[in-house]
Amino acid sequence: MKVSHIEHIGIAVKSLDEAIPYYENVLGLKCYNIEEVADQKVRTAFFKVGDVKIELLESTSEDGTVAKFIEKRGQGVHHVAFAVDGIERALAEVSEKGVELIDKAPRKGAEGLDIAFLHPKSTFGVLTELCEDNN
Amino acid sequence: MKVSHIEHIGIAVKSLDEAIPYYENVLGLKCYNIEEVADQKVRTAFFKVGDVKIELLESTSEDGTVAKFIEKRGQGVHHVAFAVDGIERALAEVSEKGVELIDKAPRKGAEGLDIAFLHPKSTFGVLTELCEDNN
Repeated sequence: MKVSHIEHIGIAVKSLDEAIPYYENVLGLKCYNIEEVADQKVRTAFFKVGDVKIELLESTSEDGTVAKFIEKRGQGVHHVAFAVDGIERALAEVSEKGVELIDKAPRKGAEGLDIAFLHPKSTFGVLTELCEDNN
Repeated sequence: MKVSHIEHIGIAVKSLDEAIPYYENVLGLKCYNIEEVADQKVRTAFFKVGDVKIELLESTSEDGTVAKFIEKRGQGVHHVAFAVDGIERALAEVSEKGVELIDKAPRKGAEGLDIAFLHPKSTFGVLTELCEDNN
């Protein structure tokens, strides 16, 4: 599998309205997009820093995975997303190597990327996303 | 404050010997350095992906902060480090803006960087490191 770069770091927050001013006014980053991903029950806010995006995730539902994550672990880093060439082949390859897949096939994520998650119990505790921009 | 890029993502693992093969054989990254940071009671393993490093952290002591982190939260992302120009000025600036500092002055971290941590209760749950390469 060829990982080109870290596409984004997903960070679970209770409220975009509260967290965005910290990222803008303290870290000096600029929020360039806010998008709702109904499928994942989140509203996302994006910042770019170097070749990596920071994706803040606010749950739109009490039973969403991000809401459950915050309830269990508090706000913080939720996942790390690696950009790959050929996401379907990459999924087949990591599966063959014994990694448990949350998504057996890619689905559409924020910004129209094809995404799939690997289970953190196979990845030393880091919820890991593979993604590819086929737009 | 001017953040140029994410310098590294710090990931707490129980064992470098177990985690390194996953990063190398599954994600296809290459470990280019292993270093002990006695001050922080960790052994670290470094990988480069795009302009970001992944820093795996293994505790060298049962009472180290990484050991305590794993005991409480399990393995996973421990901190995010932003590269800044002028770390002392950056610390003064974020402090003035109400962010609680763990390190009031920079100290030496892995790879000889000048580093300082911000308290996660001021940073929406993300243990945040500012760092500068003054080597």
